[in-house]
Amino acid sequence: MSGRVRHRLLLGSDFPPEDLGEAALYADVYRIRDLGEDELDEILPSIDCLLVAFWPGRLDRSRLSRMTKLSLVQSVLAGVNHVPFADLPAGVVVCSNAGAYSVEVGEYAWGLLLAAAKRIVKLDGEVRKPGYVQPRPLELGRETVVLKGKALGVLGYGGIGRVVTGYGRAFGMPVAVLSRRKVEEADVVSMHGRPGLEELLRTSDALVVALPLTGSTEKLIGRAELSMMKRDAILVNVSRAEVVDQEAVYDHLTKNPRFVYATDVWWLKDGRESYAPALPFHELENFIGTPHASGPSATVGGGPLRSAVANLLRFFRGERPENVVSRSEYVSAE
Amino acid sequence: MSGRVRHRLLLGSDFPPEDLGEAALYADVYRIRDLGEDELDEILPSIDCLLVAFWPGRLDRSRLSRMTKLSLVQSVLAGVNHVPFADLPAGVVVCSNAGAYSVEVGEYAWGLLLAAAKRIVKLDGEVRKPGYVQPRPLELGRETVVLKGKALGVLGYGGIGRVVTGYGRAFGMPVAVLSRRKVEEADVVSMHGRPGLEELLRTSDALVVALPLTGSTEKLIGRAELSMMKRDAILVNVSRAEVVDQEAVYDHLTKNPRFVYATDVWWLKDGRESYAPALPFHELENFIGTPHASGPSATVGGGPLRSAVANLLRFFRGERPENVVSRSEYVSAE
Repeated sequence: MSGRVRHRLLLGSDFPPEDLGEAALYADVYRIRDLGEDELDEILPSIDCLLVAFWPGRLDRSRLSRMTKLSLVQSVLAGVNHVPFADLPAGVVVCSNAGAYSVEVGEYAWGLLLAAAKRIVKLDGEVRKPGYVQPRPLELGRETVVLKGKALGVLGYGGIGRVVTGYGRAFGMPVAVLSRRKVEEADVVSMHGRPGLEELLRTSDALVVALPLTGSTEKLIGRAELSMMKRDAILVNVSRAEVVDQEAVYDHLTKNPRFVYATDVWWLKDGRESYAPALPFHELENFIGTPHASGPSATVGGGPLRSAVANLLRFFRGERPENVVSRSEYVSAE
Repeated sequence: MSGRVRHRLLLGSDFPPEDLGEAALYADVYRIRDLGEDELDEILPSIDCLLVAFWPGRLDRSRLSRMTKLSLVQSVLAGVNHVPFADLPAGVVVCSNAGAYSVEVGEYAWGLLLAAAKRIVKLDGEVRKPGYVQPRPLELGRETVVLKGKALGVLGYGGIGRVVTGYGRAFGMPVAVLSRRKVEEADVVSMHGRPGLEELLRTSDALVVALPLTGSTEKLIGRAELSMMKRDAILVNVSRAEVVDQEAVYDHLTKNPRFVYATDVWWLKDGRESYAPALPFHELENFIGTPHASGPSATVGGGPLRSAVANLLRFFRGERPENVVSRSEYVSAE
């Protein structure tokens, strides 16, 4: 490493130092939680890269303005919507951790879809009540949805979209995907732009949201979009709650009892996902909610931190880091 | 049809006559529910085939003994464990409807497996309670199971076993199957007999029961077998409850909180599945139960009745019917 500029890396969360691998060969490493207020202020001007999970509250606008050497922000979360882009000095490169949770989140999405299609949460609840009587078979059968032959729509064709598409094919579902790039996969219909979205909304029996939250995907699914969907469709969200308009989907659920919204992600309140949403989703039988449990299953194995660190190492070695996001998609034009 | 013996078909359930297709060209058709006691008694000696869903209570031992011309019993249910083999006159051929529900039941099995692996029922219930606080991500992550790379065991390789095996491969799980015949499938390990069963019990992270209920599969999974399983394994049952010993699995669940039993089938009480089992499974968090909802989803499309009738037609046309079961497997030696 001799002769090279030594980097200065600040850790926004309590990542175990032993999991940083070779990063310490290239950089002096500091953890926010180990630093007092004055110590933190003192080192900020020298920090050139930042590794964060959720954005650390202590790195507010005023502190960020003093990080004049900052050149890279690497997220351990897949999405970067938590990064305060508007407050970042110009020229800072921000990298997502796209793909690091794909299998885990894709599996979770499929679990939510099947739980909705097979009414597993609802039926398990009913059968536990004393005196439960099974409806007539045909009535019970009509309550559940057979996936084979039904149309699967996938919004977004990153890692999660790819994984979910694979499951759809294994389940014998025709799959259509909304993506900016043309998807060249056998048996997958590639759709684009607003016309593609509307076609997907109209034709899908099951629709999985696997898009990043950006300026252009926020509230992408609102009243107009929900009204285009089949009345007994299943909408699964494993990306960010804000892609779906809260009031619109609540109203849609109350008016369409056979429509199901199954989500692992929740609308933010004070910068954090809130499990007590502003509207009483918890009272609805056609709502399934899990507490953002999809991503954490990936962190158990350490995969996301490993891939985030691998990307830091690319930067340290002078290579081009992957998953560089386009700032303009995250900074609103207002 | 001239010159042929005209058959006499008795329907044990209220199958719509229009769904019997060409059967009426070959047979006079009677429905039990349309017949008074005397009328029923009168026609029984002339009936040569019987189409049943659940075994009709009115066809008791004494009436069966008078069905001297009976030569075929065709089940619309996949399994024939409801047929009173011991009371059937010798020489009667009994046909199951194996395969008619495979996709629907296979999908349901995968839904139960994912609901268990992702703790969807439990987490949905927790998040609905006021004041829910998300555990730390790593803790939440450890609660859920990532299927990719985990070992899937499948007991039985009929239609359902095949479907489930396909899903397992799509999810990146190594699959091993217990079957009487050698399974010749790429990437599927074929196991046999008691040693094969024990190997599957020891090595599977998820085990799906897809065996018919026969004399040799009743209580196949008892105390000894459960004790061989991984303490955090998931056991899914979509065949018949009696393949699993009720007391043994209840005790196992109370002693192994990370073990999950997810079932769509229930132990019989007075000849019917009872959703109020003798032991309080409904109080357990590591139990998921749905009210035999897997099969009925197939009946909505009419597929099982069509395939049962297609088999009747083989018999009427003098062809060999399919799915003939071996009586000796169903009549106990006692």
